[in-house]
Amino acid sequence: MPSVDVADEFETIAKLLAPLAHPEWGRGLRDDVAVLPSRPGFDLVLTKDAIVESVHFLATDPLDTVAQKLLRVNLSDLAAKGAEPFGYLLACHWSGRCGWPEREAFVAGLAKDQAEFGIHLLGGDTVVTPGPASFSVTMLGWAAKGRTVGRAGARPGDLVFVTGTIGDGVLGLMAAQARLSLAPERMAALVRHYRTPMPRVAFAPAVGDLATASVDVSDGLIADLAHVARASGVRIEIDLEPTPLSIAAQAWFDDRVDAEAALSMLATGGDDYEIALTCRPEAETALRREADRHHLRITRMGKVTAGQGMAARYGGRVLELNQGGWTHR
Amino acid sequence: MPSVDVADEFETIAKLLAPLAHPEWGRGLRDDVAVLPSRPGFDLVLTKDAIVESVHFLATDPLDTVAQKLLRVNLSDLAAKGAEPFGYLLACHWSGRCGWPEREAFVAGLAKDQAEFGIHLLGGDTVVTPGPASFSVTMLGWAAKGRTVGRAGARPGDLVFVTGTIGDGVLGLMAAQARLSLAPERMAALVRHYRTPMPRVAFAPAVGDLATASVDVSDGLIADLAHVARASGVRIEIDLEPTPLSIAAQAWFDDRVDAEAALSMLATGGDDYEIALTCRPEAETALRREADRHHLRITRMGKVTAGQGMAARYGGRVLELNQGGWTHR
Repeated sequence: MPSVDVADEFETIAKLLAPLAHPEWGRGLRDDVAVLPSRPGFDLVLTKDAIVESVHFLATDPLDTVAQKLLRVNLSDLAAKGAEPFGYLLACHWSGRCGWPEREAFVAGLAKDQAEFGIHLLGGDTVVTPGPASFSVTMLGWAAKGRTVGRAGARPGDLVFVTGTIGDGVLGLMAAQARLSLAPERMAALVRHYRTPMPRVAFAPAVGDLATASVDVSDGLIADLAHVARASGVRIEIDLEPTPLSIAAQAWFDDRVDAEAALSMLATGGDDYEIALTCRPEAETALRREADRHHLRITRMGKVTAGQGMAARYGGRVLELNQGGWTHR
Repeated sequence: MPSVDVADEFETIAKLLAPLAHPEWGRGLRDDVAVLPSRPGFDLVLTKDAIVESVHFLATDPLDTVAQKLLRVNLSDLAAKGAEPFGYLLACHWSGRCGWPEREAFVAGLAKDQAEFGIHLLGGDTVVTPGPASFSVTMLGWAAKGRTVGRAGARPGDLVFVTGTIGDGVLGLMAAQARLSLAPERMAALVRHYRTPMPRVAFAPAVGDLATASVDVSDGLIADLAHVARASGVRIEIDLEPTPLSIAAQAWFDDRVDAEAALSMLATGGDDYEIALTCRPEAETALRREADRHHLRITRMGKVTAGQGMAARYGGRVLELNQGGWTHR
C-alpha cells in the first residue's frame, strides 16, 4: 500500500527489519507473505495485540523497550495457553517522532527479544501515521495437538495459582509517571517491569501439561480470573493475603495504612503478564516442582467451587466487587 | 491490554465482532488466541497490511468500505501467491470519530466480505487511539505444500500477463477526491474501485498452477514487475499500448492529449489489486482458458529476457524510467 514517505519504508524493511526475518519462512521480507510448513501433531496458536502511544505506552518510553513490551505482551498470551512461540508478524504505524534513529532503537529492541525468546520476524507492514505511533503484532506458536489450555476448563475442586508477583504493572506505570516516592532502586525496578515485563514463556510447557484453565494477567488478577470463572461456568474464590509481591511492591505496601485497599488495587491493576491458572489438587506437587525447576515463584491464591462469579476475600470477608470495576482499572 | 474506554472495547468484541468469529478456531474471541489444526500437505500463507486514515483511506470514506478494502488488500496479496484464504486476525485502532454506529458500519463491511470471500475472523485486538483511525489485518490462507508462487521464479522466455484492468486505483482516488470530471456513472465506478477493489481470489488456484512468478499490483504495475525482475534476476519488458483499461479509465484516457504520459501514469499509479504474473509460453493457453472460466480479463503485456531491470515501451521506444520513480507514485 502507498504511504507518506515510501522510500523510508522500503529502507526500513530492507536495512532494519530484513535481518530479523526467519531464515526460511520469512522469505527475506521480500515476498508480501510468509510461508509456514504444516507441523503434524501440533496446532498453530495465534494472538494479536496492538499498542498505542500515550494509551499503552508513554511518549517518553524508549522505543527499544516499546518494541520489547509489544513482543512480550503477545508472548504472554501464548505462554498462558501453553504454546511455544516461534515467530511474529509486525505492523508499525510510525509517527512523526519516529525518524531513522528511533526506528533503529525500536528494531534493536526487537532483535534483543528475538534472541531472548527464540523467535523470528515473519512479515508485516510499515506505514506512517500523522497521529501517535502505534504497533501491532501477530504472534505465532505451537502447542501439541488439542492441548492448548483455554479459559473454560476450570472445574470445582481445582486450585488457583499465580506465577511471579502481582502489582508491579500498576506500580510500574505510577513509577514511570513519577507518581510514587520510593528508593531509587525500587523505582527503577518498577519502571523496568512496566517497560519490559517478563512473559512466562519457559513455563508454558508446564501450563500445557498441568493446567485445567489459564489466562495471562493483563486486565488485573481478579478481572482475569473472573474471565476464567465465567468461561468455565464455575465460581472462583481467592484470598488477597497471600498476593505475592516483589521487593519494590512490598516496600510500597509497607507504607500503606489500609492493607485491604492496597492489595485490592494491586489485584485489579493489570499489566502484570503473569499466568493465573487452575489445576487439579493432585497436580499441585508437579506444578510446584516445575516452578522450582524454572526458578519461578508460584503462589496458591484460592480454589474453584461450584456456582458462579468471582470472589476476593480479605480477612475472611468477601470484598464488594463492582462487576464493572473488575473489567479494568 | 488496557485501553481508554475498555467497556466499549469489550462490548465491541462481544456484540459486534464475536458473531464474525470462525465457529471453531476463533474460540468465540473469548480466549486471547486462535487455535488452528495443522493441515498436512498444505503450507500456511500469511500476510499483514495496515491502513491509516488520511494516508491509505479518506476521512470521508464510509467505514463499511474501509473494512472491505482492508480485507481486500490482504486477500489480494494471498491471491497473487496462489493461496486460498480462510481467516484473519484484526487490530482496530479506533479514533474519536468511531462511535458505536461507525463500529457497526465497519463490522457490517467485514461481514459482507466474509460472506463474499468465505473467510472468518480468528482473533485480534481493539484499542482506542487519540490520533486518526488505523487498522491492520493478518490474513491466512492455504497453499498446496511447496506451491506458493514467489517473486523470484521468472525465467527468460516467460511471458508477462496482468489480470483485469490497470489504472482504476489511481483514477479512483482522484475521483473520490473530486479531482476528475467524467460522467457521473464513470465517477461512481472509479470511486467504487478505489473503495472496494476486487482481489482475484477465485483466480488464485490458476496462479498457483501456472505462474512462475507473481505479484499483486499495489505499488503500480511497473514498480511491481520491477520487484519481480529484481527478485528473479531477469529483465522484464512490457509495452504500454495493450494496457487494459476499464470503461471509465478509457473515457478518461480518450480525453488525454499525451497518450504516452497518460498510460505511464496509469501503469505507475498503484492500488489496482490485480495480479501481474509470468508464465512459460506453453502455459498461455491454459492460463487464458482459466481466465475465461472465471470471466476474468487477462492481458499479455510483455516478456522476460536475460539481463536485468524493467523496461516499459511506448511506440517502440523505452521510456525513461527514473529508478526511484518506479518504487512509487
